[in-house]
Amino acid sequence: MRGVGLQRRLVRSWPFCPLSAITIQMITTEQALKIILDSVKPSAEVEWPPLAEALGATLAQDALSDIDIPPFHRVTVDGYAVIASDGPGQYPVVEDVPAGHYPKVMIRPGEVSKVMTGAPLPEGADAVIAVEKTGGFADVGRMARIDEPISQGKNISRQGEDLKAGQTALARGAVIGPAQAAVLASVGVDPCPIFRRPRVAVLATGDELVDCQRKPGPGQIRNSNGPSTMALIKSAGVTGVNLGTAGDSEAALEEKIRQGMESDFLIVSGGVSAGDRDLVPAVLARCGYRTLFHKVAVKPGKPTLFGVSAAGRHVFGLPGNPVSSMVIFELFILPALMRFQGAPHQAMAVEARLEASFKRKDAQRQEYLPVRMSWEEGGFLARTIDYHGSGHFIALTQANGLIMIPMGVTSLPKGSVVSARFTLGRIAPAQ
Amino acid sequence: MRGVGLQRRLVRSWPFCPLSAITIQMITTEQALKIILDSVKPSAEVEWPPLAEALGATLAQDALSDIDIPPFHRVTVDGYAVIASDGPGQYPVVEDVPAGHYPKVMIRPGEVSKVMTGAPLPEGADAVIAVEKTGGFADVGRMARIDEPISQGKNISRQGEDLKAGQTALARGAVIGPAQAAVLASVGVDPCPIFRRPRVAVLATGDELVDCQRKPGPGQIRNSNGPSTMALIKSAGVTGVNLGTAGDSEAALEEKIRQGMESDFLIVSGGVSAGDRDLVPAVLARCGYRTLFHKVAVKPGKPTLFGVSAAGRHVFGLPGNPVSSMVIFELFILPALMRFQGAPHQAMAVEARLEASFKRKDAQRQEYLPVRMSWEEGGFLARTIDYHGSGHFIALTQANGLIMIPMGVTSLPKGSVVSARFTLGRIAPAQ
Repeated sequence: MRGVGLQRRLVRSWPFCPLSAITIQMITTEQALKIILDSVKPSAEVEWPPLAEALGATLAQDALSDIDIPPFHRVTVDGYAVIASDGPGQYPVVEDVPAGHYPKVMIRPGEVSKVMTGAPLPEGADAVIAVEKTGGFADVGRMARIDEPISQGKNISRQGEDLKAGQTALARGAVIGPAQAAVLASVGVDPCPIFRRPRVAVLATGDELVDCQRKPGPGQIRNSNGPSTMALIKSAGVTGVNLGTAGDSEAALEEKIRQGMESDFLIVSGGVSAGDRDLVPAVLARCGYRTLFHKVAVKPGKPTLFGVSAAGRHVFGLPGNPVSSMVIFELFILPALMRFQGAPHQAMAVEARLEASFKRKDAQRQEYLPVRMSWEEGGFLARTIDYHGSGHFIALTQANGLIMIPMGVTSLPKGSVVSARFTLGRIAPAQ
Repeated sequence: MRGVGLQRRLVRSWPFCPLSAITIQMITTEQALKIILDSVKPSAEVEWPPLAEALGATLAQDALSDIDIPPFHRVTVDGYAVIASDGPGQYPVVEDVPAGHYPKVMIRPGEVSKVMTGAPLPEGADAVIAVEKTGGFADVGRMARIDEPISQGKNISRQGEDLKAGQTALARGAVIGPAQAAVLASVGVDPCPIFRRPRVAVLATGDELVDCQRKPGPGQIRNSNGPSTMALIKSAGVTGVNLGTAGDSEAALEEKIRQGMESDFLIVSGGVSAGDRDLVPAVLARCGYRTLFHKVAVKPGKPTLFGVSAAGRHVFGLPGNPVSSMVIFELFILPALMRFQGAPHQAMAVEARLEASFKRKDAQRQEYLPVRMSWEEGGFLARTIDYHGSGHFIALTQANGLIMIPMGVTSLPKGSVVSARFTLGRIAPAQ
């Protein structure tokens, strides 16, 4: 079903062709993503924040355990440590071993010790019987009644059964979530080596923009791309630098773009299309960014630009409308930010059934539509939302995902299965 | 398939029965969740952070628009503003209107104005024709060539078509993500009214625990529950207060628990089971917490305790093993934190096919198993991971979700469809 014509027309030598030759070609989203992932390299810089501040970052070195886990034969129930072959009967209690206390008394045949969950197993014992299967807890020196037989090794986590000292507890490249934090804490990796997270500067351009605290005058609108892009960046766990707005003059743009060049990534919205006041590509070139692509066969987001500076920092130029910005963030910018951190860059793709039929005239681009996804009758159902074009960003507040219509496809009947993804990887009911 | 016996045995008058009567009953997860959601009330306090700091919070008041959106008839392509009935032909250009500039000249029949995307439509015009369908841009005073007919209203977003001044742009209760930030910025809601986010104190108990920067001595292990619970809290977008560890003495516990009572929620791990050093329930009662339930028919996590103080603050007592802590956080604590913020509390439940058969002896509890979920052949496939019990938390780093085995079910063949969820609502490939 996919149109491949546009792919074939791609200029193969793109990194070396002059800006003008590139700008007239449209590449596919797959080609654009490949160019991005080839150009953005994982950061070579390693930082050592406290573990508590490493959440969401990528582990930059293998984390080796300095201890066995468990560090000793660990009791897993409250009860009595016994010698299994002794069997049921009455036996003297020779010690009381709470968790956190090391047993001092070796058990000999015909003896038991009282032990608590988490305590080390006393020497000589080879099983633990739960208190529920005994006559209850008796004090040291008294007799305990063991009611049931038990087999060797029961209710014991053996020393090193999860991990031995010197083994890798967590491999380089792991993204640090709560489970990873538990492992790193257990093996004492605090502070914690992580790939440096990128700094991302955000600039919204256009004479019509005013800051959101101001009331727009005639012909003006508030800057919404800045706040939403900053929110996207924060959701991705990286640091945003809000450069505010720049008007449509080369001097204003150049000043802000040069500030943005100090960050690992610069995201510029507006001013990248064919309009005669669309000055961004020229100013980016003058500032030293080399364009790696400009225009992608995607809807919304066709004028998207991607470039790299001599210092290896990257720029994304996005169309000014908010829906395009958000779709392009999902498709291209988020993978670039993940790649910079040495993390997996792919969103989890799923499939969804269309609740209604889909039709379009122009099938030259891959199209992304905001949808409300829910799990119904064994699969995801995608409901398109009241959405009348890429400027209609209020509709996006009702969406929790995007569906993808391939190039070459002009219509899909109701119930068709399409590729889908959740916004920012959050699987949540639509609001 | 679900066992209902335990439900029937529930003491109906739970809020009023003494602690001892409650502790001997096991309630279902559904009953436990209902008790939690009945007791935790949305915060009555409204805060006004800058919009940039409101991400993840819940909007506490309807956000009304102070302007129409779009605020004027907005041009959506670069081209010429025309009177549609004029049709193709050559017409003088009477004005050049960039975005952000208000048109000054009214168009009369037989005239056109040059307009850019985002600009207001000049008075008199009723359509915009894209520059690609003309002879190209001509300067003011020159003639423009219009090549194609166009219908009224084309390439114009009409004033107020997304939203009229005074209408609700975003309703109270919306969780503020990037799309919501765009809307709030557009209507000038910055700072932004949000329900106060909870403060959550975290305490790990047990004589065996040492801080993760220290090397454990004989019988000791590092505190991993503290860091992982803090990470869970941070992932939920709320503020954690790490109280560190307390040993198994009433005095040590009471000191830390009284500190924790200053927070909206206190999470205590360890010391809630039946062991004779499990002092937490008694110390919580002495500090003034009333127990609303203790023990739930869930695996892992049976000893879970939930209580409320006279000041309406809540405590969760969790078993000390890390896997229980993380499962109970998903099932009960996260919904409570969402509820406090007036946000939807339900995770999105999906279904998954079991990659392997499942068997267990004791089916009295609902059981949660960590799994690796992937999208394969039109649905989610759940692969159980090498997991040998609730102490084996290293396994959790490979999981991206949990599957649920209902009460009463002892075996499920390979390919069975079970209820599943993604960890912390992140739909991402397993690491």
